[in-house]
Amino acid sequence: MQKQILPYLKEMPKGLNRNGIQHKTVKGSVSKSKQKSRRQRWNIRPSEISINTLNPIRAIVDGMKLSPNPGKPMIALSIGDPTVFGNLPTDEKVTQALKDAIDSHKYNGYAPSVELEDIQTSKNLLLSSLQDVVLTSGCSQAIDLAITVLCNPGDNILIPCPGFSLYKTLAVSLGIQVKLYNLLPEKSWEIDLQHMESLIDDRTTCLIINNPSNPCGSVYSKEHLQNVLSVASKNCIPILADEIYGDMVFPGCKYQSMASLSSDVPILACGGLAKRWLVPGWRMGWILIHDRNQIFGKEIRQGLVHLSQRIMGACTIVQGAIESILNDTPQEFYYRTLSFLKSNSEICFSELSTVPGLTLVLPAGAMYLMVGIEMEHFPEFQNDVQFTERLVTEQSVFCLPATAFEYPNYFRIVVTVPEEMMMEACARIREFCQRHYRPCSQDSNELDQ
Amino acid sequence: MQKQILPYLKEMPKGLNRNGIQHKTVKGSVSKSKQKSRRQRWNIRPSEISINTLNPIRAIVDGMKLSPNPGKPMIALSIGDPTVFGNLPTDEKVTQALKDAIDSHKYNGYAPSVELEDIQTSKNLLLSSLQDVVLTSGCSQAIDLAITVLCNPGDNILIPCPGFSLYKTLAVSLGIQVKLYNLLPEKSWEIDLQHMESLIDDRTTCLIINNPSNPCGSVYSKEHLQNVLSVASKNCIPILADEIYGDMVFPGCKYQSMASLSSDVPILACGGLAKRWLVPGWRMGWILIHDRNQIFGKEIRQGLVHLSQRIMGACTIVQGAIESILNDTPQEFYYRTLSFLKSNSEICFSELSTVPGLTLVLPAGAMYLMVGIEMEHFPEFQNDVQFTERLVTEQSVFCLPATAFEYPNYFRIVVTVPEEMMMEACARIREFCQRHYRPCSQDSNELDQ
Ligand SMILES: Cc1ncc(COP(=O)(O)O)c(C=O)c1O
Ligand SMILES: Cc1ncc(COP(=O)(O)O)c(C=O)c1O
Repeated sequence: MQKQILPYLKEMPKGLNRNGIQHKTVKGSVSKSKQKSRRQRWNIRPSEISINTLNPIRAIVDGMKLSPNPGKPMIALSIGDPTVFGNLPTDEKVTQALKDAIDSHKYNGYAPSVELEDIQTSKNLLLSSLQDVVLTSGCSQAIDLAITVLCNPGDNILIPCPGFSLYKTLAVSLGIQVKLYNLLPEKSWEIDLQHMESLIDDRTTCLIINNPSNPCGSVYSKEHLQNVLSVASKNCIPILADEIYGDMVFPGCKYQSMASLSSDVPILACGGLAKRWLVPGWRMGWILIHDRNQIFGKEIRQGLVHLSQRIMGACTIVQGAIESILNDTPQEFYYRTLSFLKSNSEICFSELSTVPGLTLVLPAGAMYLMVGIEMEHFPEFQNDVQFTERLVTEQSVFCLPATAFEYPNYFRIVVTVPEEMMMEACARIREFCQRHYRPCSQDSNELDQ
Repeated sequence: MQKQILPYLKEMPKGLNRNGIQHKTVKGSVSKSKQKSRRQRWNIRPSEISINTLNPIRAIVDGMKLSPNPGKPMIALSIGDPTVFGNLPTDEKVTQALKDAIDSHKYNGYAPSVELEDIQTSKNLLLSSLQDVVLTSGCSQAIDLAITVLCNPGDNILIPCPGFSLYKTLAVSLGIQVKLYNLLPEKSWEIDLQHMESLIDDRTTCLIINNPSNPCGSVYSKEHLQNVLSVASKNCIPILADEIYGDMVFPGCKYQSMASLSSDVPILACGGLAKRWLVPGWRMGWILIHDRNQIFGKEIRQGLVHLSQRIMGACTIVQGAIESILNDTPQEFYYRTLSFLKSNSEICFSELSTVPGLTLVLPAGAMYLMVGIEMEHFPEFQNDVQFTERLVTEQSVFCLPATAFEYPNYFRIVVTVPEEMMMEACARIREFCQRHYRPCSQDSNELDQ
């Protein structure tokens, strides 16, 4: 496609002048009268913010030597996009809602909240009073706006470790400090509340809670969420609840949103269509402003409105479809997706938790699970990056090293792949571990003591 | 819709506790052990950047008393959205391309340039090598990314006056200074090149050129663009070419893109589907990186890639349709739209240029025209804001006062309205002017001298 749109998008410069001499003459005649304050030569540098917008996943993956074993077809368990294997299509109702929105011809214009000139007349004043819901370009922009409205440079935010890398990427680029609070694998990845609270200081302006969790697949109980709220309440810190996997809990488990439990802590709940409806490319997200006792008040709402007008939100066709998507998608669709994810998680858990040298926690939601590597039993590898690199070289299985989530010595598995692939991948991981596993010798144990 | 999606999107807090006493108790027990460094009460302030993201149009329009004459139906000539009146539908091929993209089931996932984890496998590696094209959420995000990559806080950019307000909104929020260069109505809104060059200093990092122009409807000649390029070249300043109205020039006129003429000045050309294809809500824009002699080089490209990964770009369904939209939309569609805009502009020009007290320049493209108000002939009104406010009160016609474009004593007319409405609006503007026009008395002339 790139090539085919080039004739339109990428014009070749006509009369491109690469004649060095003529070029020089022009410059020469100019430089006589040139004022000191002007540039005398080209020197365009990217801005600090663009340099500081770093994606650790890219940095790590780019640094890896990923040459699969030619004897085995590649299986990528690394991709947080449930659509890549084609086994998890969105529901027919969802795509139909989009087509209906197109056919209505009502959703081609700017959304009203967004085009500020059209306060007078508007055909589609349907969506987003922007009082309590801000529609965004994906949950990513929801998180961006929420962090941006709550924090100034020099402030700090608390983020989960392990956790989704975007929080840090965005914060650091804005000059906001991040402090990582620990999740506890031995407590099904619950938050270490004491550790979290110990990080709070007077510049802490936002507490990010991701539930269900990427990369852990954990789902917090009501009690745990209430404890989190107590910490926030005690310290008067608002919560950014990243609930992009909201309601994505396996059959038998219960999901509780943060906002449903808060009596005093104001919450910006970020969500979107990406995962539950299996359409991440559609870039539809939202912030639900859950104010309490007017603590956010008009100003935070107004700040979010200002920020959302910088680039305007989501595609209006998807906006036009959202009501139907939220209300008319059949329950069986959700159930089918979640049953599949549960079953795949269980396969993965039962296949890998018996592998010597690996440790797993059974996930309860989202679409991931974390696998711990007992590095002392794999002396050939220095860390999770080397471990997963060699897993590609030998077994053509790629898992994301959890260093990407600031959590070394783990790797993350995405459980959206087709069941057969999941089983094959687990078998290969098992084989890989069996080959490289070294029982700790008595000697080294003694040395350690 | 808002109401209907509320049951899903807006949860009511369960067990909301508004019991002041209990609340107090909790606080009381905490404050004993509270460390000095922690907050003792709620105090959430919006960030500087959110406060500083100001839309002047909103500020001005919100401050206006807009109560239409109940005897006349409202006509809004203020809305820069060509879809609001329903008279300018997009082409059937364009909506069909979108439906085909949906039906292909290939465009529900993250776009490849965007999801950094899926370097290994990807079904839809079709779009954006990101070498030379960066797809964005509308032209607004293209402009945001282009400014953000080129400028640090403390730098300055040159922007047109009158000009589209977003440039300043974005720059100021980022701590970037703006300097306004004049457009000359007497020269069909060409740039005052001397004035522009006089503004350049050693912190000038970007020159924004908007052609065809909002709000002027002007289209620059090849010669004028070459002169602009000379200034940029002499001073080694890259150009941000806002070409969202690119190719939207009236039959008989010729459009030349900035990049097609540049031999040495590197250009970030920003565009999108919004106006030419009449689908502003779809939020599809792009940056074409026109490097010259590797002046932008890898670093600016890389900076743009970093920035575009913050929130990821446009809806993939629209991305999937873009090739077909660019290549298969029939020429007659463009021709029909532009003939209509030309005809409406001519109606507006011929109706209003003979009205005493108004001055007009015939536009050659885009979808706007600027009307000058000879304020000395309208002594009842202090400025364009009062003038347009009273035009609503008396005639139920709303035009945007050009103070919104930093250009007082003008107002902007959008020429996308149906022809009959255009004629009716012009008649009402004429009536309004005739009622309020005062010939300058000899006395006041003498006083002036
Ligand atoms: C925890 C978490 N939050 C937010 C997002 C971003 O979602 P979106 O694709 O809607 O921007 C993701 C995507 O993987 C995620 O895992
Ligand atoms: C000059 C100019 N540039 C950019 C834009 C933004 O375009 P988009 O709707 O694609 O963000 C507009 C919209 O009116 C405009 O007039």
